[in-house]
Amino acid sequence: MKIFIINGPNLDMLGLREPEIYGADTMESINREIAEYCKGVGVEPEFYQSNSEGGLIDIIHSARGNADGIVINAGAYTHYSIAIRDAIAAVELPCVEVHLSNVHKREEFRHKSMLSAVCTGVICGFGKKVYRLAIDALSL
Amino acid sequence: MKIFIINGPNLDMLGLREPEIYGADTMESINREIAEYCKGVGVEPEFYQSNSEGGLIDIIHSARGNADGIVINAGAYTHYSIAIRDAIAAVELPCVEVHLSNVHKREEFRHKSMLSAVCTGVICGFGKKVYRLAIDALSL
Amino acid sequence: MKIFIINGPNLDMLGLREPEIYGADTMESINREIAEYCKGVGVEPEFYQSNSEGGLIDIIHSARGNADGIVINAGAYTHYSIAIRDAIAAVELPCVEVHLSNVHKREEFRHKSMLSAVCTGVICGFGKKVYRLAIDALSL
Amino acid sequence: MKIFIINGPNLDMLGLREPEIYGADTMESINREIAEYCKGVGVEPEFYQSNSEGGLIDIIHSARGNADGIVINAGAYTHYSIAIRDAIAAVELPCVEVHLSNVHKREEFRHKSMLSAVCTGVICGFGKKVYRLAIDALSL
Amino acid sequence: MKIFIINGPNLDMLGLREPEIYGADTMESINREIAEYCKGVGVEPEFYQSNSEGGLIDIIHSARGNADGIVINAGAYTHYSIAIRDAIAAVELPCVEVHLSNVHKREEFRHKSMLSAVCTGVICGFGKKVYRLAIDALSL
Amino acid sequence: MKIFIINGPNLDMLGLREPEIYGADTMESINREIAEYCKGVGVEPEFYQSNSEGGLIDIIHSARGNADGIVINAGAYTHYSIAIRDAIAAVELPCVEVHLSNVHKREEFRHKSMLSAVCTGVICGFGKKVYRLAIDALSL
Amino acid sequence: MKIFIINGPNLDMLGLREPEIYGADTMESINREIAEYCKGVGVEPEFYQSNSEGGLIDIIHSARGNADGIVINAGAYTHYSIAIRDAIAAVELPCVEVHLSNVHKREEFRHKSMLSAVCTGVICGFGKKVYRLAIDALSL
Amino acid sequence: MKIFIINGPNLDMLGLREPEIYGADTMESINREIAEYCKGVGVEPEFYQSNSEGGLIDIIHSARGNADGIVINAGAYTHYSIAIRDAIAAVELPCVEVHLSNVHKREEFRHKSMLSAVCTGVICGFGKKVYRLAIDALSL
Amino acid sequence: MKIFIINGPNLDMLGLREPEIYGADTMESINREIAEYCKGVGVEPEFYQSNSEGGLIDIIHSARGNADGIVINAGAYTHYSIAIRDAIAAVELPCVEVHLSNVHKREEFRHKSMLSAVCTGVICGFGKKVYRLAIDALSL
Amino acid sequence: MKIFIINGPNLDMLGLREPEIYGADTMESINREIAEYCKGVGVEPEFYQSNSEGGLIDIIHSARGNADGIVINAGAYTHYSIAIRDAIAAVELPCVEVHLSNVHKREEFRHKSMLSAVCTGVICGFGKKVYRLAIDALSL
Amino acid sequence: MKIFIINGPNLDMLGLREPEIYGADTMESINREIAEYCKGVGVEPEFYQSNSEGGLIDIIHSARGNADGIVINAGAYTHYSIAIRDAIAAVELPCVEVHLSNVHKREEFRHKSMLSAVCTGVICGFGKKVYRLAIDALSL
Amino acid sequence: MKIFIINGPNLDMLGLREPEIYGADTMESINREIAEYCKGVGVEPEFYQSNSEGGLIDIIHSARGNADGIVINAGAYTHYSIAIRDAIAAVELPCVEVHLSNVHKREEFRHKSMLSAVCTGVICGFGKKVYRLAIDALSL
Repeated sequence: MKIFIINGPNLDMLGLREPEIYGADTMESINREIAEYCKGVGVEPEFYQSNSEGGLIDIIHSARGNADGIVINAGAYTHYSIAIRDAIAAVELPCVEVHLSNVHKREEFRHKSMLSAVCTGVICGFGKKVYRLAIDALSL
Repeated sequence: MKIFIINGPNLDMLGLREPEIYGADTMESINREIAEYCKGVGVEPEFYQSNSEGGLIDIIHSARGNADGIVINAGAYTHYSIAIRDAIAAVELPCVEVHLSNVHKREEFRHKSMLSAVCTGVICGFGKKVYRLAIDALSL
Repeated sequence: MKIFIINGPNLDMLGLREPEIYGADTMESINREIAEYCKGVGVEPEFYQSNSEGGLIDIIHSARGNADGIVINAGAYTHYSIAIRDAIAAVELPCVEVHLSNVHKREEFRHKSMLSAVCTGVICGFGKKVYRLAIDALSL
Repeated sequence: MKIFIINGPNLDMLGLREPEIYGADTMESINREIAEYCKGVGVEPEFYQSNSEGGLIDIIHSARGNADGIVINAGAYTHYSIAIRDAIAAVELPCVEVHLSNVHKREEFRHKSMLSAVCTGVICGFGKKVYRLAIDALSL
Repeated sequence: MKIFIINGPNLDMLGLREPEIYGADTMESINREIAEYCKGVGVEPEFYQSNSEGGLIDIIHSARGNADGIVINAGAYTHYSIAIRDAIAAVELPCVEVHLSNVHKREEFRHKSMLSAVCTGVICGFGKKVYRLAIDALSL
Repeated sequence: MKIFIINGPNLDMLGLREPEIYGADTMESINREIAEYCKGVGVEPEFYQSNSEGGLIDIIHSARGNADGIVINAGAYTHYSIAIRDAIAAVELPCVEVHLSNVHKREEFRHKSMLSAVCTGVICGFGKKVYRLAIDALSL
Repeated sequence: MKIFIINGPNLDMLGLREPEIYGADTMESINREIAEYCKGVGVEPEFYQSNSEGGLIDIIHSARGNADGIVINAGAYTHYSIAIRDAIAAVELPCVEVHLSNVHKREEFRHKSMLSAVCTGVICGFGKKVYRLAIDALSL
Repeated sequence: MKIFIINGPNLDMLGLREPEIYGADTMESINREIAEYCKGVGVEPEFYQSNSEGGLIDIIHSARGNADGIVINAGAYTHYSIAIRDAIAAVELPCVEVHLSNVHKREEFRHKSMLSAVCTGVICGFGKKVYRLAIDALSL
Repeated sequence: MKIFIINGPNLDMLGLREPEIYGADTMESINREIAEYCKGVGVEPEFYQSNSEGGLIDIIHSARGNADGIVINAGAYTHYSIAIRDAIAAVELPCVEVHLSNVHKREEFRHKSMLSAVCTGVICGFGKKVYRLAIDALSL
Repeated sequence: MKIFIINGPNLDMLGLREPEIYGADTMESINREIAEYCKGVGVEPEFYQSNSEGGLIDIIHSARGNADGIVINAGAYTHYSIAIRDAIAAVELPCVEVHLSNVHKREEFRHKSMLSAVCTGVICGFGKKVYRLAIDALSL
Repeated sequence: MKIFIINGPNLDMLGLREPEIYGADTMESINREIAEYCKGVGVEPEFYQSNSEGGLIDIIHSARGNADGIVINAGAYTHYSIAIRDAIAAVELPCVEVHLSNVHKREEFRHKSMLSAVCTGVICGFGKKVYRLAIDALSL
Repeated sequence: MKIFIINGPNLDMLGLREPEIYGADTMESINREIAEYCKGVGVEPEFYQSNSEGGLIDIIHSARGNADGIVINAGAYTHYSIAIRDAIAAVELPCVEVHLSNVHKREEFRHKSMLSAVCTGVICGFGKKVYRLAIDALSL
């Protein structure tokens, strides 16, 4: 089973700023942990990141025929990108929307997701654990 | 580690109606599966269900001092019960909001949750698997 | 044919206060009249009242397998109880929503019903006659 | 007792289209059934239909002095015609708003009625039975 | 192939006022041009105009059985006439909504159309050319 | 100077109902008073009334070339008829919107006028005096 | 009969700026014309102007016992001053709200008046003529 | 004079959690202080608490004939319980709505009260003092 | 302990109009009663009234260093004066917002207070008693 | 005459998925048909597609000086891209907004277009025919 | 070049309260710094402050003919004073709206400005530097 | 001191179109003027432009560690790009939002900025001068 792990805008900045606050976890180190976990459960992950809406659409398109499922943390695009929503709907793969933080504790405009309605399900608020839970949700 | 698994209104009807459509899973059989899983990961579950808003508040209060975490599927109360929200906030325990279905694919009024902002995180849309994922989220 | 006649919050106060204004009709006397009428049309009524949202849900659940239809005056819960809405949808019985008064002549927040969309139909504004009309609607 | 049965826009198309779906009931055949029923309960019905808002207002005005009550299915005008609302208020007769379908199961814009607040009551969702129930509501 | 070309309120005033601004095209001359064009593409047009909502509904009804398609410029009724919407839905014919001007450049209340959702498609903003394009859309 | 005095829906009911409340003034008697007043100020009035939106549009169109100004009490259509708004704009004559009652003391939906923005001005709340004031506004 | 003519904020700037556009009419010259007109119809006017909300309230209060009616052009305060609304309601005198321009042709926020509901009536859009019409409305 | 002191959901948790923050005052100790104060001013208090909406309605109903006034802190139900609103209106007793905290400093959804309009008055923001002030408001 | 008692717009009209309805209590006589009460509880009151928003701000500013608390009935300004809100926040004194009437029983626009969030608490609906309760709230 | 045919996000997926449902038409095959049609009417088309908002802006900019008109199907960006709107406005070329499906039959958020107000006109709902109609609209 | 520097409500409190937090800068000391800076760039400043909306309007009016530009910090009035907006528009001078704090980081109701649309431009968020930047904006 | 000057979508079109209207200033010539000015005040500017949201995010990220401040004119993205907002917040540098035009004089949707709340301050409406003022705001 192959799963695309797709991260959106600004997630490339994880761990680079204020490590004393946000921890030393960079996107890279998190990806390594995910890769480790995947090995144990027989899943083959493939990692992508883009700050560009169009870039994310291209990645999602490429999952068609190449992956059995998608885990996507679309960052801020979550809240307004109808184009990414359409891309997810178009590839017709099981897709899990994840967020590191509990978006419902943050600004009002982060409570609405344009993506949830075309995803299989949503997992948010458990920090980097959300990726592992999403892989379980797809692979169990 | 002890976790309260709390189910809200109408979840006692699971599996009783139209088994050919919704499957034969009743709340009871799901709870048995959860109990089984918990054994494997060293968690002690305690199961509750109530159709009453006040009843759910009483159960949540009783978690204080008696549990290390809560998994709650508050059903329809999710969308308007400020009283349950306050109860969750009051007991100050890690709490995971779960939903069997992806509420974002359903009516507009099910997209808003009064509970999310006081929970640790949210998991929805993976059927009965959400309980297991929530336990993992609390216990890992 | 068996029909559950379910009354919600504050309807137990009917006729108790200001009889010179609201008339001497108590919920009990109205129920007696309904029972009388039912006899004539071959319907077996069963009467319930609860001030509790959870209590009403329990009653509705119990109609499953025990009744051929429901007449419900959910009082104030009509306007916000998604939980009662879900209960009505779950039991999959013909259900008539009734109101003694014409709710559309009252406060704005009474114009919206959370229940109408899962009921067979709605009858309001004809005083105690609404129960009889609802029974006709179900039994004709 | 004389009652005006008034039907609004597009109700003249009943039964003409897709009889295999909507049934063979035309407005005419429904009116015949109503007339039959009225005979039994000592009510004299008078039938009107118009696709025109102004036409409906003229009919309502003519009820003044000529009828003891009105049963009106104003079709789509229900949702925006303040002019028909004013006409109903002006003639000061008991008036029942009816709808064949349960409008609350349909598009959002059909949930609001401009007429309900000036009618005695509302009956909707029971197909052609709504006319008979409305006549009962007026004549009992 | 027979197509009804239906014009709504105030379109009978075209070309009559301020010809130096709006051009000398009257509804009549435009209709003549359309008739000319239709001849070339084997379409038989039939022209109607009414300032009355009810009148337009009657015309639309009459298309049933008498036309293969409808081109409608419902003028101001476009924005609020649920009754015309229902009429279009009732006759079950391919129907094209047209507007001479680009309504989206005008007042906010002209941006919403009650008709679009029951039409095959919409064409607006190309002046009198919209009729010809609509005929092509139906006949190609 | 010739002025069209146009009255809309339900104004033909003035004085017919509850004269002890609304006074004995019928639309006819009011029109006679207006005619009398006009004589004194050298204005030639022409009176129209229609309950139909399309009818009112036809009357407004006919003012073009036949009148120097319009006084219109469009009744309930005031609040939603974009079609009458367009008709007033099309004839390009000075036009005064009047209302017998102070619409701002009534229901919320009567506070909005679709016509005001295309009229020269608005006069409301002074009973039948509004017609005379409107004539003054046009003729002084 | 004594009438207070009250002008609100910025009306003291009338005629001072861009006389080639707005005309040479200053508030003073308009007041002189009004005074002239009043003489002819037996009305004694008293003129006030203030740019201050509190100042206008003081003036309105002073009308109590000293005037038989009020004509008020509250300028921008019209749209948000609940305090002026309360003052008008408190003095219990016939009061006419006037505006030189047709406020409904201007910005959205000028379409709402906080004052209309406590005034006898409203006159707007006829330039300086509105004062004379208002005096007629009060004195006829 | 007898007064019902009614506390709603989660108020039974007062003082139990984080005493270093919220103080050592439990609902019980506060009630003892109130009882003490009542003695001094000749008022007989009766204390109730329920986490259930229906339970609170039952308590309010029981005040009818048994109390001269009500002090109610309905907690979270304040913001959405139309059923409690109806119960307060039904018993027709002077009723004071109280809140320990100043709800207007908290989340937006706590700014709206469904109860205020049927209570005599509202007191909020002074901690446990609100009960004493409410008793004074009723008994002075 | 010194407390500023500040009254806003139109409160100087209390008791002057319709004494048979509103009672003979003028602001002056109420202030005398308050002064009397204050003597008994060791509070030194200072009374202010202004119809001007700016005037009220000046008074509030002057409380800084001269008072230990403020009781303010800002009348209509309550609902829109962000400037008074800022003044209250700036002087950093305990401040009680009061209203004679229960504003929640009145027009929708009186339900919102711009001041509550910067006050210690709110007391409304008990007539002139609100001043005494507010003094207690500050001085107990 | 040279026309840019610009397609936005996800339109590169046309025909690739579920050909039994959506047909075998790929963007490529549609473009070939368009090219064919253009030859017949003397138009030189140039085809572009991008999933990136910025990419589409670059393409639109390049039309300046290189094209006589634009046909744009901006896909999901239609509904929120103010940046594409500004790009269209900036190049000052006749531009036709097209959509394959009738967007008004789909989700609410697809009913609003940010682009329509800066385009010459809009054509939607006729499948691939919309491109041909748009070319006619520009070239006739 | 002469510039009016106008400060609105509560800005006279700057520096008086909590100097350890807000700094020792009073309005006076800031004005002195501005005066100093103006000397260097050949601008003659004139300083005004008022807590009254009407007072600010009077000051703005007086700028007409006496100043070449205005720098205004209207404080809380910024968000609702249409009257000050009209005053700025009336004097037809270049006007810069300034705010010490970044209003967009504060409460929602401070995000809207009634003044911006009639000012030349807006500068906010740089503390006392905004006055100097505004003077540069006007004088460069 | 090093400052990134970042321009967003469509700003590369400045001066290219209609120089007789918008002036001959291209982005390049403006940048040259800025560079000139920077030299005088000891600031080292670095210029960027991108039409792509993702491109702008990349540029902002690169400012981290390479710049002491940012001046950003995000063009149309200002109004909806939560992703750019997050990028600005992530780099934790002083950032000034600028706009050439006064966005508050334009369409409603340009009045809201998603960026202001994470910027130090905002400057708009002074044409190309805004860049210089922003540099002063950062460097003074």
